[in-house]
Amino acid sequence: MEKHAESLKDVVLRPIGIIRSPLKKKEEVPIQPVYAQGIKGSVEIFDEYTDGLRDLEGFSHIYLFYHFHEARDVRLVVKPFLDDVPRGVFATRAPCRPNPIGLSLVRLNRIEGNILFIEDVDILNGTPLLDIKPYISRFDSRENVRSGWQENVDEETAKLRGRRNFHETI
Amino acid sequence: MEKHAESLKDVVLRPIGIIRSPLKKKEEVPIQPVYAQGIKGSVEIFDEYTDGLRDLEGFSHIYLFYHFHEARDVRLVVKPFLDDVPRGVFATRAPCRPNPIGLSLVRLNRIEGNILFIEDVDILNGTPLLDIKPYISRFDSRENVRSGWQENVDEETAKLRGRRNFHETI
Repeated sequence: MEKHAESLKDVVLRPIGIIRSPLKKKEEVPIQPVYAQGIKGSVEIFDEYTDGLRDLEGFSHIYLFYHFHEARDVRLVVKPFLDDVPRGVFATRAPCRPNPIGLSLVRLNRIEGNILFIEDVDILNGTPLLDIKPYISRFDSRENVRSGWQENVDEETAKLRGRRNFHETI
Repeated sequence: MEKHAESLKDVVLRPIGIIRSPLKKKEEVPIQPVYAQGIKGSVEIFDEYTDGLRDLEGFSHIYLFYHFHEARDVRLVVKPFLDDVPRGVFATRAPCRPNPIGLSLVRLNRIEGNILFIEDVDILNGTPLLDIKPYISRFDSRENVRSGWQENVDEETAKLRGRRNFHETI
């Protein structure tokens, strides 16, 4: 009845594209799209997957799923960018997760062939793309939300620390 | 400069836990948490990852990332559950994606040790868990959204078709 870690198979994913952005160093990558407003990038979808893009342009916002390919050690307790208290990694969006999958909700400006032009990009240049899903308001937003330790971070601090070094290097 | 499909490495993920739910057959799984209201389930986190759960209980909603382990063939064009027009798979949330990663935004009721008690569960029993991220309103909700073909599906139809066979079998 019970299954254990060793009985579950590894999941092997193959990148379906690559993300381009002006963010060339980890240190300058904003921590979330909301702190990356106006940063433009693109996604090249590999030819064999282009048919899957049909109807996508009707959506103004899309989720990108990608590999944190520059993440190194896994840490289960991590000091988040927004405050200085060590937190469980699953209560943060830090890249040093057991499975280094990133999620960014970006703006989709247009599609030309196999290239997606996107905005509010908080993703390192050259990041391998794993999946795209459309953002759908009735599925994806919630009200009456408690946001744990994040509620103690005021908006000003979040903006300042969330943007990281981006403003200094571009 | 350019990287191509064959030059990007496969990404190997190892399940960090397992999701339990009353949904034992694919045909009875609602298509989204919003159509699975009141369906309760749990997540067992494997012992070696329990330290990563610290601070998570402060969040009322969490994203679960999981393997669509029962998905079979990849289809780039697919008829969605909510209408009858074939759509590009990246413009849908269908499981038959090139990389079968599922995302569900569920309610977190409480945590006891390594067990998460969750609600609004649209996930098949026995599904391997890959990651957890907290839902944070200021990161994860958007206004002024265009939702493409989904906007032509009225709310009544969405509720009826989105819930699928769940009501008949439980």
